[in-house]
Amino acid sequence: MTTQRKISLDLAGRSYDVRIGAGLLAELGPAAAAIEKVRSAVVISDSNVSELYGQKAVSSLEAAGLTATLIDFPAGEENKTLGTMARVFDELFAVAPAVDRNTLIVALGGGVVGDLAGFTAATALRGMRFIQCPTSLLADVDASVGGKTAVDHPAGKNLIGAFHQPAAVLIDVETLKTLPRRELLGGLAECVKHGAIRDASLLDFIEANADGLLACSSKEMTELIARNVEIKAAVVSADEREAGVRTHLNFGHTIGHAIETFSGYGKVTHGEGVSLGMVAAAQLAVTEGLTDASVAKRLEKLLGRLSLPVRRSGLDADRLWDIMQHDKKVCNGKVRFVLPTGPDSVDVFENIAADAVKKAIEYITA
Amino acid sequence: MTTQRKISLDLAGRSYDVRIGAGLLAELGPAAAAIEKVRSAVVISDSNVSELYGQKAVSSLEAAGLTATLIDFPAGEENKTLGTMARVFDELFAVAPAVDRNTLIVALGGGVVGDLAGFTAATALRGMRFIQCPTSLLADVDASVGGKTAVDHPAGKNLIGAFHQPAAVLIDVETLKTLPRRELLGGLAECVKHGAIRDASLLDFIEANADGLLACSSKEMTELIARNVEIKAAVVSADEREAGVRTHLNFGHTIGHAIETFSGYGKVTHGEGVSLGMVAAAQLAVTEGLTDASVAKRLEKLLGRLSLPVRRSGLDADRLWDIMQHDKKVCNGKVRFVLPTGPDSVDVFENIAADAVKKAIEYITA
Repeated sequence: MTTQRKISLDLAGRSYDVRIGAGLLAELGPAAAAIEKVRSAVVISDSNVSELYGQKAVSSLEAAGLTATLIDFPAGEENKTLGTMARVFDELFAVAPAVDRNTLIVALGGGVVGDLAGFTAATALRGMRFIQCPTSLLADVDASVGGKTAVDHPAGKNLIGAFHQPAAVLIDVETLKTLPRRELLGGLAECVKHGAIRDASLLDFIEANADGLLACSSKEMTELIARNVEIKAAVVSADEREAGVRTHLNFGHTIGHAIETFSGYGKVTHGEGVSLGMVAAAQLAVTEGLTDASVAKRLEKLLGRLSLPVRRSGLDADRLWDIMQHDKKVCNGKVRFVLPTGPDSVDVFENIAADAVKKAIEYITA
Repeated sequence: MTTQRKISLDLAGRSYDVRIGAGLLAELGPAAAAIEKVRSAVVISDSNVSELYGQKAVSSLEAAGLTATLIDFPAGEENKTLGTMARVFDELFAVAPAVDRNTLIVALGGGVVGDLAGFTAATALRGMRFIQCPTSLLADVDASVGGKTAVDHPAGKNLIGAFHQPAAVLIDVETLKTLPRRELLGGLAECVKHGAIRDASLLDFIEANADGLLACSSKEMTELIARNVEIKAAVVSADEREAGVRTHLNFGHTIGHAIETFSGYGKVTHGEGVSLGMVAAAQLAVTEGLTDASVAKRLEKLLGRLSLPVRRSGLDADRLWDIMQHDKKVCNGKVRFVLPTGPDSVDVFENIAADAVKKAIEYITA
């Protein structure tokens, strides 16, 4: 057994542990059985993850003496809908023996599964306990903390949902070995973001261990995820006291989202957009005199080292600016930017001139 | 202006006021505008209530300077589904200007509307604030306290939902004048139940004011609802400390539900079932030696005085017993009964012999 890490969180009055390590999926059964009164479990997954790890999860639950059932739905963000959830409910309420308050939901998969299965757990029987087993790096470091669950609506992403904290989070870093490379890189972009907004030593760690991380080495991944969970938890719990701190997590997202939209669905992944967005935002901060040029240079170099894009051809600065102005996160008609103010600090700015933003976009245009 | 009553509740850490009186719907606008940052409102109602009171609610909101939109769905418990909610979401997210966290949801209608619109408010944008304007007596005295919201699933009632406390509850007793008579009586049955489980003086009040209540006099109705809201709130908040107290609200429901099921959907209303169930349960308590015969007699007389059924022809005691044993509320294979132990007290019993139950059913069989 390689090193395990355990992080105890206490968010919104609910406390639970996030455990990270290689082979942790085999400990799902004991973890489930340790929860008060739980005697049965329903694993909710998507078609991709179910095929890879569904049986492993069920076997672990059964070995721990629980009745276990597996429900899956077609993979893909386009299926994160109320319609999919309705079919999941149909299967959930057809499980025999019938689910009750002592049945545990297990969310096994990436961000889409965590969101949809978490929302199912939040609302079935007005709230069932659930364990999250994220299987993508983005879900590991982002979705596993904060209790946000949701499905999409044609009018926008995550418009229908609830806050529902898991009873436990089990992150088996071995599942990352089957993750498509672009998704792995997208997760790494979020990790760099966490370092850039809060923790320069995380940037040091990623720089020093880039090879191991790109190779999905369990040891380095366990450490990376643990550090990121800690940062995400610190930001989320600070936000419970100080509204708006959570906004810092949007570093790279304003321009990044616009690039995703501009490029068309699926052409640029979320992580690639965030990578490009961070490079542009850092450059913008430098030209606005908010931070030193070395901060932007370091970020750009690290993202490049991780095979993440730092330039993209064909970006149209005027169009991107228009897209940003129609983004949901616009507040009182002003586009809000999260910009670096140092090597590991950011702040929110609302009065950035259009010209400065367009110049930053030109900077990342190949 | 006739008398108004205001009851301040503090449940599950959220506090809000329940206001009761004649003409309160006209005060919806000021009440909504008084909530922090609220600038727009969406009224969700069903086809029946929308036609009667939808415009009145919208006018009140607009007069208070808010943008107001009305969304309705077809009336009837059979429409309290995820499918109906999906259509409500479609309309909600098509409202212009777009709904945001400062938009208020108004649930205008009976229990079905309160449940569905409340669940919509619980989950749209991961939780929007809402005002409840119940328009049926049952919703006034039952659904307006406790924060339970839900939709039904073919596998059972209220299987999908959430706890979500309203920002305020406005009960306009004038809306009861348009309530179908059977629904009014059903609400009165629940009021009698509240008296029988907690407060003999409420039974005194109903006995002394039966004519005014049956005529929907605003003065008596305001007083009746206020007293019942207080009892329901006391039971719900006691249950936060002492699990199981809420079970007392099931007085009359074990046998009542079985009569509803036995008679077929819509033949016996919920209130009629509860009335019959209370008479049978009280009789059962007398034969079991749990309470004095005068308790059962008084209850039966009062329900009869309110035109509620105390006998029904064609009940089959064996079949009813079978139905009870398959009810969801059976715990560890034992049917649980809430039985009177005095004029305004009840307790939960699990070891009542089948024969005694069947005799109680024969007692109410005409």
